[in-house]
Amino acid sequence: MNDSPTPPFFAVWLDWPIRCFRLDSAGEARLRALAPAGSDFAICRSQEDFLRALPSATHALAWEFRKEWFALAPRLRVLATPSAGREWMPRPESVPGSVTVRHGRFHGPVMAETAAAFMLAHARGLYRAEELQAAGDPWPRAALSPYCFTLAGTRAVILGCGAVGGAVARLIGALGVETKGIRRSNIGELIPSLADADWLVVALPSDTGTDGIVSADVLAALPPRAAVINVGRGNAVDEHALVEAVRAGRIAGAYLDVVRNEPLEETSPLHPRSLSALRTPDGRPLSCAIRLLPHASAFSPDYLSRFFEELFAS
Amino acid sequence: MNDSPTPPFFAVWLDWPIRCFRLDSAGEARLRALAPAGSDFAICRSQEDFLRALPSATHALAWEFRKEWFALAPRLRVLATPSAGREWMPRPESVPGSVTVRHGRFHGPVMAETAAAFMLAHARGLYRAEELQAAGDPWPRAALSPYCFTLAGTRAVILGCGAVGGAVARLIGALGVETKGIRRSNIGELIPSLADADWLVVALPSDTGTDGIVSADVLAALPPRAAVINVGRGNAVDEHALVEAVRAGRIAGAYLDVVRNEPLEETSPLHPRSLSALRTPDGRPLSCAIRLLPHASAFSPDYLSRFFEELFAS
Repeated sequence: MNDSPTPPFFAVWLDWPIRCFRLDSAGEARLRALAPAGSDFAICRSQEDFLRALPSATHALAWEFRKEWFALAPRLRVLATPSAGREWMPRPESVPGSVTVRHGRFHGPVMAETAAAFMLAHARGLYRAEELQAAGDPWPRAALSPYCFTLAGTRAVILGCGAVGGAVARLIGALGVETKGIRRSNIGELIPSLADADWLVVALPSDTGTDGIVSADVLAALPPRAAVINVGRGNAVDEHALVEAVRAGRIAGAYLDVVRNEPLEETSPLHPRSLSALRTPDGRPLSCAIRLLPHASAFSPDYLSRFFEELFAS
Repeated sequence: MNDSPTPPFFAVWLDWPIRCFRLDSAGEARLRALAPAGSDFAICRSQEDFLRALPSATHALAWEFRKEWFALAPRLRVLATPSAGREWMPRPESVPGSVTVRHGRFHGPVMAETAAAFMLAHARGLYRAEELQAAGDPWPRAALSPYCFTLAGTRAVILGCGAVGGAVARLIGALGVETKGIRRSNIGELIPSLADADWLVVALPSDTGTDGIVSADVLAALPPRAAVINVGRGNAVDEHALVEAVRAGRIAGAYLDVVRNEPLEETSPLHPRSLSALRTPDGRPLSCAIRLLPHASAFSPDYLSRFFEELFAS
């Protein structure tokens, strides 16, 4: 970050009920160590604290910032959020010209590990073994055998070529997966690319242009052996079409870090109560073939330290 | 394999109740395509068929071979088994000097994927998320957060530096794990290496020299955050000590592809009935912290093709 004639003043409000998203003493120490010498800090534990600190702030570090708060912050030059998503920051047209808004881009390598974890758990039969064990066979050797394969040599189509999609491509590429990235500008290539895909990995941000992009038609273009991974945003997937594709055996499964409405709603087609009532053609409850993480793909104990390192590296 | 003046005769008996270990038409086609021109084949579906074919055989490909069968096979030059383990072949002192015994060494890359799958499922919270979901919270975001970390940057001690240990080191090395291999000749380095290990990966064969090598003392040298992975043979681990280490919270978990007595016995300390009755210090059933695969780490649909490719590559 640019030096300025007056020392920077950081208004920091990074609280969240998620432990790794909350500034703790280790994270604060990291921030103080990385910030320019002479910086001042207001470590805020509430919105009120944060709003009181804004008049002094040259830099605001927060999960959320409302457009009306700019009027409280005449010295503000940088508004930075760890989130890659745009949902909690003012729209660009509401941001004063004197303020730069920065979103974290450090999540990719962590989220790529989560995508790889899903893929390996599926390919190496971890999920399937548990399912067979839970059904009463503690050593389901013969039953498991048909479902295990190697990740190396499979083909993944990655929808979204931003920081996350790129990190996924690099990591699974190192594991021997052949990858093809599709960006929105060449979305016409998506369906033709899916016929020989083993995986469709979705790594798209949430906006009107991505809504429902993984449609019934897209799912119908996948072969029955393929699985869908979503580490982007839930709005990209037609969830009813996804459930129906798995129920009909047209795809092998889905591993989702995100859903359309979070936290997961009772009325969601992805709620375990709905999924466990449905069966695949070979009799599995859909709750086995569709697995969810609670929007956790970027969880890491050093999450905020990664954010600060990125912030001060530039 | 060496050419010989008379065409090779392959007595092939590769039946097994595990689908990917059983010669099917695709595997047989691969064998015929790779074998020297003019080879003859007896594809045997029973021990009787196999014993009847042995008098003609220059090559025997089988899961099992008893020492008394050598007397039936005067022309035999090569006895090859897909298994890396020594359990089903005659001891070296029973093998005639004219016969070379070959064990598969192609398993490493597949088994390494299984080790990585276990590690990523643990690190990225896949197992923990399911456990929390099964306990009634379909979206356990805050509860999951403390348990997720990145595989990259962790440290693994790999016990066993053969084909499997080497393949594990290469694969998890590509994922950013710092690895240290311990062979039996430097076993004295094992305990001192464990103090800052995140993983102990066991990739040892079964013999008297490995029996119980992962002892209570070895487990006690690991930090509480560490997990044990075994993709070698079950005899290497003191199973009572392992269960006790997890129960007492002295290690974070264990992910095992193998157990001492297979198939898993009702009386095993690793039987889910025993494990689910015990609790970790934070109240988890041990059946969540100790997960088993049914000796499946090398399962792959092209298992026998990999065996044939290795056999004819040399």
